Amino acid sequence: MQRFRACSFYSRLLANSKVSLTPSSAVTPLPKRAFPGHVSPSYVDFPIGAKNCFPYLRGYMSASTNLSMVNDQMGAQPVDLLKAVEDIHGGVVVSLEEPVDSVVFASELGASMSQWRQQGKKGVWIKLPIEHSNLVDVAVKQGFRYHHAEPDYLMLVHWIPHTADTLPANASHRVGIGAFVLNNNREVLVVQEINGRFSGTGVWKLPTGAVNEGEDIYMAAVREVKEETGVDTEFVEVLAFRQSHNAFFRKSDLFIVCMLQPHSFDIQRQTSEIEAAQWMPVEDYAAQPFVRENQLFDFVHKICLSKSEGNYSGFSLLPTTTSAGKKTYLYYNNRDAKHLLTSDV
Amino acid sequence: MQRFRACSFYSRLLANSKVSLTPSSAVTPLPKRAFPGHVSPSYVDFPIGAKNCFPYLRGYMSASTNLSMVNDQMGAQPVDLLKAVEDIHGGVVVSLEEPVDSVVFASELGASMSQWRQQGKKGVWIKLPIEHSNLVDVAVKQGFRYHHAEPDYLMLVHWIPHTADTLPANASHRVGIGAFVLNNNREVLVVQEINGRFSGTGVWKLPTGAVNEGEDIYMAAVREVKEETGVDTEFVEVLAFRQSHNAFFRKSDLFIVCMLQPHSFDIQRQTSEIEAAQWMPVEDYAAQPFVRENQLFDFVHKICLSKSEGNYSGFSLLPTTTSAGKKTYLYYNNRDAKHLLTSDV
Repeated sequence: MQRFRACSFYSRLLANSKVSLTPSSAVTPLPKRAFPGHVSPSYVDFPIGAKNCFPYLRGYMSASTNLSMVNDQMGAQPVDLLKAVEDIHGGVVVSLEEPVDSVVFASELGASMSQWRQQGKKGVWIKLPIEHSNLVDVAVKQGFRYHHAEPDYLMLVHWIPHTADTLPANASHRVGIGAFVLNNNREVLVVQEINGRFSGTGVWKLPTGAVNEGEDIYMAAVREVKEETGVDTEFVEVLAFRQSHNAFFRKSDLFIVCMLQPHSFDIQRQTSEIEAAQWMPVEDYAAQPFVRENQLFDFVHKICLSKSEGNYSGFSLLPTTTSAGKKTYLYYNNRDAKHLLTSDV
Repeated sequence: MQRFRACSFYSRLLANSKVSLTPSSAVTPLPKRAFPGHVSPSYVDFPIGAKNCFPYLRGYMSASTNLSMVNDQMGAQPVDLLKAVEDIHGGVVVSLEEPVDSVVFASELGASMSQWRQQGKKGVWIKLPIEHSNLVDVAVKQGFRYHHAEPDYLMLVHWIPHTADTLPANASHRVGIGAFVLNNNREVLVVQEINGRFSGTGVWKLPTGAVNEGEDIYMAAVREVKEETGVDTEFVEVLAFRQSHNAFFRKSDLFIVCMLQPHSFDIQRQTSEIEAAQWMPVEDYAAQPFVRENQLFDFVHKICLSKSEGNYSGFSLLPTTTSAGKKTYLYYNNRDAKHLLTSDV
């Protein structure tokens, strides 16, 4: 299994405080040089390949103009090398923008790999937009493996050294939320979904949903409730979370139970996905067999009630801002730690 | 942006309690039928495509034997259809095991897609082992997009209906831990890494690392400390966690600060990755500029100390076991909720 060493939380914030890589927006592209072929450096929108680089920063990596002509194995035909930029871990990144014939690509890739081996490069990354799907087989035949894919591209990688691969791993978890929303009448906001496991069973469940890439957990909870029921809410706390494995495409899941405070009460269900939505007396919700007969569901429900009664502290939000103006959030027990925010230990 | 609706936490546990899909190990393969070609059902090791299916269960999905002969567009040449199994959301899954010529595959895929459209299928999934990289371009040319990739396969998908795509999203987060390990002398376990952002800076940081797919958070923390320093520990609590975005390949990160109790004290550093490791007086650790001058680092450090002094409650572990014998863990505030475990509200 490939190893991945994580940067500390400190390194992430430190890096944000003292940006060691120039933000892309501030970079002046390097001038084109008088070489044949494509030489303009590429801004690559992902930080790459590192043993100790979790999390990575976006950055403009040092460009190497590697447009040179080398003789191919025939000794007579010059072969272009692939345009690539160096990453900060001794590797290179190839990002193809324009269509390339697969035979030409095979030749250029082979020549480039020879050069990178000679140069002692480590990880070689190739980002293939889906429009270049004709090149996937070429890369694989030359020893590249898949790293990850998004709808519009496939990332392949090849580790050159004979030492253990220290390439970073792909995303490993999906994150979802469940929202416990209680009004002043001790009624909890519940839904029946049109599709899914509970469809047609009569079960009333809490609003749930996935946290999207780039979305804050607390915002996902507020969003899901708004989408499914039309109710406006404010995030209060994370009450608990559960981790499970092998749930989906061998990935792991984190399910985060959130308490939200309602700020509106009229329900407008999401007709495409929600069969029905209502404010249900909390005792009736808990009396449903699927809650009552499941120890963990029942326990979590009790935690939610305990929170509503002021007898439970989960994790609150602490917004933070990096020196680059980027917002991140810390979730922590504010009841126990708020005095630490303003005083020294 | 593709929508993904999450199953509730309840549905996951309910599904585990009443396994609606037969665990793979208990399944007797369906008998081969008297059709030409390949007809044995495939166990597909991933649950697929669902609007309301987070998290999914592994399961053996109903097989459809779709080996029939259809006339191709020429009207005269019979064309095999692709072997596929139905998922529980109106879609099909193709999982290729044996090499296929790309021309043959193109023909079979086209014919299969026609049939699936007629049958009103929704999501069509194709799992291509990396050995079948020659088929990627064929699938893309017939309208498939990438869904996700692992080192050894690429998953492509095509949404047939004209309605909004409700296919599930890929993993969105990476999860990492930082371990705060304090001994009875009020010394904290710290390391200097050979590689990474702090390499050569003189900074002493907490042990950190990524949580692997399939690995429990608490175990990842214990493992990382053991690997980096040789110290045996026991997980105590999650003290806080932080979410950040666009850290790595557009994914989001969760960094989880954990408190661990040491059970051994001799240090054996991991020579491949750790330059040095030591027990450092906690005041000296906090006095480092990278802690002291960063409000968030400093705050988190104070939380850790407060915990060690018994004045802070994070989230403890509650092991749970599904009816299938599978272990999962709930993280919650035990100090506030332990009385709920045995009594009724």
